Amino acid sequence: MIKVVISGALGRMGTTIGRIVDESPDMELVGGIDIREGTLYGTQVVPAEKLDELLKEKKPDVLIDFTIAAAAVENIKIAAQNNVALIVGTTGFSPEQRETIRTAIEGNVPAVISSNFSVGVNIFWKLVREAARELGDYDIEVTEAHHRHKKDAPSGTAKTILEILDQELGNREKVYGRVGETERKGEIGVHVIRGGDIVGDHAVLFAGNFECIEISHRAYDRAIFAQGAVRAARWVVGREPRIYSMQDVLGI
Amino acid sequence: MIKVVISGALGRMGTTIGRIVDESPDMELVGGIDIREGTLYGTQVVPAEKLDELLKEKKPDVLIDFTIAAAAVENIKIAAQNNVALIVGTTGFSPEQRETIRTAIEGNVPAVISSNFSVGVNIFWKLVREAARELGDYDIEVTEAHHRHKKDAPSGTAKTILEILDQELGNREKVYGRVGETERKGEIGVHVIRGGDIVGDHAVLFAGNFECIEISHRAYDRAIFAQGAVRAARWVVGREPRIYSMQDVLGI
Amino acid sequence: MIKVVISGALGRMGTTIGRIVDESPDMELVGGIDIREGTLYGTQVVPAEKLDELLKEKKPDVLIDFTIAAAAVENIKIAAQNNVALIVGTTGFSPEQRETIRTAIEGNVPAVISSNFSVGVNIFWKLVREAARELGDYDIEVTEAHHRHKKDAPSGTAKTILEILDQELGNREKVYGRVGETERKGEIGVHVIRGGDIVGDHAVLFAGNFECIEISHRAYDRAIFAQGAVRAARWVVGREPRIYSMQDVLGI
Amino acid sequence: MIKVVISGALGRMGTTIGRIVDESPDMELVGGIDIREGTLYGTQVVPAEKLDELLKEKKPDVLIDFTIAAAAVENIKIAAQNNVALIVGTTGFSPEQRETIRTAIEGNVPAVISSNFSVGVNIFWKLVREAARELGDYDIEVTEAHHRHKKDAPSGTAKTILEILDQELGNREKVYGRVGETERKGEIGVHVIRGGDIVGDHAVLFAGNFECIEISHRAYDRAIFAQGAVRAARWVVGREPRIYSMQDVLGI
Repeated sequence: MIKVVISGALGRMGTTIGRIVDESPDMELVGGIDIREGTLYGTQVVPAEKLDELLKEKKPDVLIDFTIAAAAVENIKIAAQNNVALIVGTTGFSPEQRETIRTAIEGNVPAVISSNFSVGVNIFWKLVREAARELGDYDIEVTEAHHRHKKDAPSGTAKTILEILDQELGNREKVYGRVGETERKGEIGVHVIRGGDIVGDHAVLFAGNFECIEISHRAYDRAIFAQGAVRAARWVVGREPRIYSMQDVLGI
Repeated sequence: MIKVVISGALGRMGTTIGRIVDESPDMELVGGIDIREGTLYGTQVVPAEKLDELLKEKKPDVLIDFTIAAAAVENIKIAAQNNVALIVGTTGFSPEQRETIRTAIEGNVPAVISSNFSVGVNIFWKLVREAARELGDYDIEVTEAHHRHKKDAPSGTAKTILEILDQELGNREKVYGRVGETERKGEIGVHVIRGGDIVGDHAVLFAGNFECIEISHRAYDRAIFAQGAVRAARWVVGREPRIYSMQDVLGI
Repeated sequence: MIKVVISGALGRMGTTIGRIVDESPDMELVGGIDIREGTLYGTQVVPAEKLDELLKEKKPDVLIDFTIAAAAVENIKIAAQNNVALIVGTTGFSPEQRETIRTAIEGNVPAVISSNFSVGVNIFWKLVREAARELGDYDIEVTEAHHRHKKDAPSGTAKTILEILDQELGNREKVYGRVGETERKGEIGVHVIRGGDIVGDHAVLFAGNFECIEISHRAYDRAIFAQGAVRAARWVVGREPRIYSMQDVLGI
Repeated sequence: MIKVVISGALGRMGTTIGRIVDESPDMELVGGIDIREGTLYGTQVVPAEKLDELLKEKKPDVLIDFTIAAAAVENIKIAAQNNVALIVGTTGFSPEQRETIRTAIEGNVPAVISSNFSVGVNIFWKLVREAARELGDYDIEVTEAHHRHKKDAPSGTAKTILEILDQELGNREKVYGRVGETERKGEIGVHVIRGGDIVGDHAVLFAGNFECIEISHRAYDRAIFAQGAVRAARWVVGREPRIYSMQDVLGI
C-alpha cells in the first residue's frame, strides 16, 4: 500500500488527484496540506506550515505537489528531509529555485518533476522530436488552442514543443502572428487560439514540397494530468534518489 | 459561341483561364493582351495599349481581366466603351478607382467583379454568414494557411471573412496573434499560417460552451479560380448593364 | 421560480440536469423519480410509480424526462394529465408510441421533444441543411467519432444529419465503409470512428471540383445536453399546448 | 550527367517524371518507352519491345519504371542485363514476380523499389511506426481520403500503414466500416473517404484515456511522387547491386 500526501490538496488538481488516489486499491491517502483547512475524501487537510509534523506522523511514501513555485520549494525541502519521495507538477521555478530543489533531492529522495504528466503529451513530445529530426527542412508551424480563460500564451506544453524544436533544429526565430506584408523565412510560426471551453489542443505542422505532415494531441479532460501524476507516484517509490522526468516513468 | 479576350493573358491566371476557354466547346479565345507579346493557345497576345483596336477588330462578348488595379481600370473603361461585358478578378482598387469603374460600367455593360471566383469559397462565405448570425455569442477564431511565398497576411479571402463577420456582428477587435499574458474578450483571433506549397485553407472556429463548430474550405488547385471566372463569363453575357457579384452568378 | 421534477433523476443525464437546476437561481428542484430511490441535491427521489402523487403534491411547472421509451410514454401521459409542461430527451420511440405521446400532449401541455438538446448541434444541423442546398452536386461524406463504449453506429446525431441530407437532396444511397474494388457514384459515405473517450465529433465533408468544404461539431462535455434541456425547460413554461422542437426554443 | 530512360513515358507519372528530369541540370532524358509512340520533352518514345535496343544504344545510367506488373518484370530483366540501375514505382507484383525481380537484380544492378516515393509519406510511415510502439494500448483508427475516381480501397499507402501497425502490434482485426449494433474491441478501424479531387490524405488516430494523438499526411500534388522517384534515381547510380527501399534513399 502506497501512502500518499497531497499538497495543494483543496485546489483543482489536488482534488482530482485525491479522487484518483482514493479510487486506487493499492494507494492510501493519508494526509493533505493547503493554505486553507478542510477534508479531502475523508482525510484531513491541514495548513502548509504543518507539513513536517504531518510527514513525521503519517510516514507517507510520496508527496504529490501541485502548488506554486515558492511553496513547492519549501515542501520539497521538507519532504526530502523526511525521506518522502516526490511528484512535482508545480511550474514556474526560477533558476535559483531549480538549483535549491536539485540540491535538496539528489542523493536523498527520488522525485519526478514534469510540466505535464499526461501520458499522451509525453509521447506526443517524443514524436515531435522524431519528426523534427527528419523534417528539419520543412516549414514548421505550431498551433495550440485552449479555453477562453487561459492567460498565458503560448501554453507551457507548447513552450516545451518549441524547446524540443530548438534542441533538434537550432534556435529558430519564433513568430507569434502575421499581419500586413510578410515574408516567411526560417522562422517557426506559433498560433494561439483561445475560445470557449477547449481543454487543450496542440498541433505541429511540417509543410514541405506539395505535402504536409501534422502531429497533434487533444485532451478531453484535465483528469489525464492527475492520472499521470498518480502513475508517476506509483513508479517513483523505491527508486534511486535523484530527479526523474515523466519520460523516465513511461520508459520512452 | 462566346468570344473571349483575356487581359493579363500570359500571367499565371491568364494562362489557366486561356486553357479552360480553349477546352470549352461553347467558347472561343479571340485575343489576349499583356505587357509582353506572345501566344496563348494559338491566339496572339498583343501589348495592352492595343486593347481598343483588338476589341474593335475581334468584337468579343467578354473581357476577362486578372491584372493589377491601375491597368484594370483602363481596360474596364475601354471594354465598356466597346460594349464588351467584363469579368474582373483584379484586386486592390482604391475607393477612387472603384468609383471610376462603377461609372464606366453602370448602364453600359454587365460586369462580374469578385475577389474570389471559386464556387466553393463563395458558398463557404455564405455559410460563414449564416453561422455568424446564429453563433454571435461564441468566441470566433479565423485561421488561414497558404504557401510560404504568399506575402499578404491575412489573405484576401480571409479579409472577406472578417468583413462578413463585421457585417453580422458589428466591428469586433481583431487580434493577429497572442503571446505573453493575454486576456480574451470579445475579439476575433486571426491566425495566418505560411508554409510549403499549401494552396489555400480557410477555417472559422466558433468556440462556445463545451462545444465548437467549425466551417472550413480547402483549395487543391488554383484552377478553381479560373474555372469560376469562365463560369461567370458564360453567365454575364446578355445581362442588364450593371455590376454583379459572384453570388449573383451562383444564385446564392 | 420554475419548479422542476426530473425523471431518470439518478441516471447520468438526470444527475447532471439536477446539478444545473440546483445552480440556477430562477429554478427549484422539487422532486425526482427513478427506478431506484435516493436523493438528488437534497431533493428526494421516489419510485416512478409515485409520479402522479408527486406531481399533485409538488405542483411543478415542468417535468424533464431522460429515461427509456416505455417509461417516458407513461410519464408523459401523467404529466399531461397534471398540466405539467414537458422536456423529453428520451429516444427510441416506436411510431405507435409517438402517436400516443402526440395525443397526450396536443391541446393539453407544451412540450419540447428532441434527440439532441445541445445548442451547438442544433445550429450545426441548420448549417448542414444550408450547405446541402448549395452543394448538392458535391460528393458528401459524413464522419462521426465517439468513445469506445458507444454501441449504436452511426450516432443518433449522425442519423439526423442523414435525414437532413435526404430531405434536401432526395434519398441517396448510404455506404457505411469501403473496401476492395469500389466505385463512387452518388452515394453518401458514412464513417463511424470509435475509440478512447471521445465525447462526440461530427463532420460533413462536401468534396467538389478541386475544393472541399467541411462543417464540423465537437462536444467537450456531455453537460451541454443537460444545459440545453434546462434552457428548453425555462422556455417551455407558459407556451401554447403543443409539441415544439429544440429549433423552436432557439428561434433558429 | 545522369542519363535517364523512362518506361511508361507517356503515362501520367511518366510525363511528370519526364518534366522533372528535363528541368534537372544534372540529368539528361535520353529515351522513353511506352505502348504508344510519341515524344516526351523532345525525346523520342519508342515501343516497349525496343527497350533492349534503346538501352544498348543510349547506355543510360538508370531506368525509371511506372507501368504495370507484367511489363515491369520484363523491363527490369532487360535493364539488369544491360547494367542499368532501376527505380521501380510499379505495384501489384505477385510473389512469383517479386522473386523473378529479386533474382534479376541482386548482384547485378542497384534498384530502388517502393510503393510510394514521396519523401513525406516515407517519413510519415516512420512516425506511425514510432507512435505504434508507444501507443499500442490506445484504440487505433486509420482514415484515408482520395478523389472520387480512385478504385482501390484502402489506398496502397494505407495498406502499408496497416502492415506497419501489424509489424509493431501483431495482427489486429481490421474493420472497414461500422453500422448497427457494434462493439469495439482490439480492432483497427479503417475509413475510406472518396470524393471530389482530393489528392491524398492519410491519418492515424490513437485514441486513449481522455486524450487523442493523430499523425497525418496530406499531398497537394501528385508531382511529389515523381520528384521522389527522381531523387531516388540520383541516389541509386553507383550503389552496390541490390534492392533498396525509399527509406534507404532518405537515410531514415
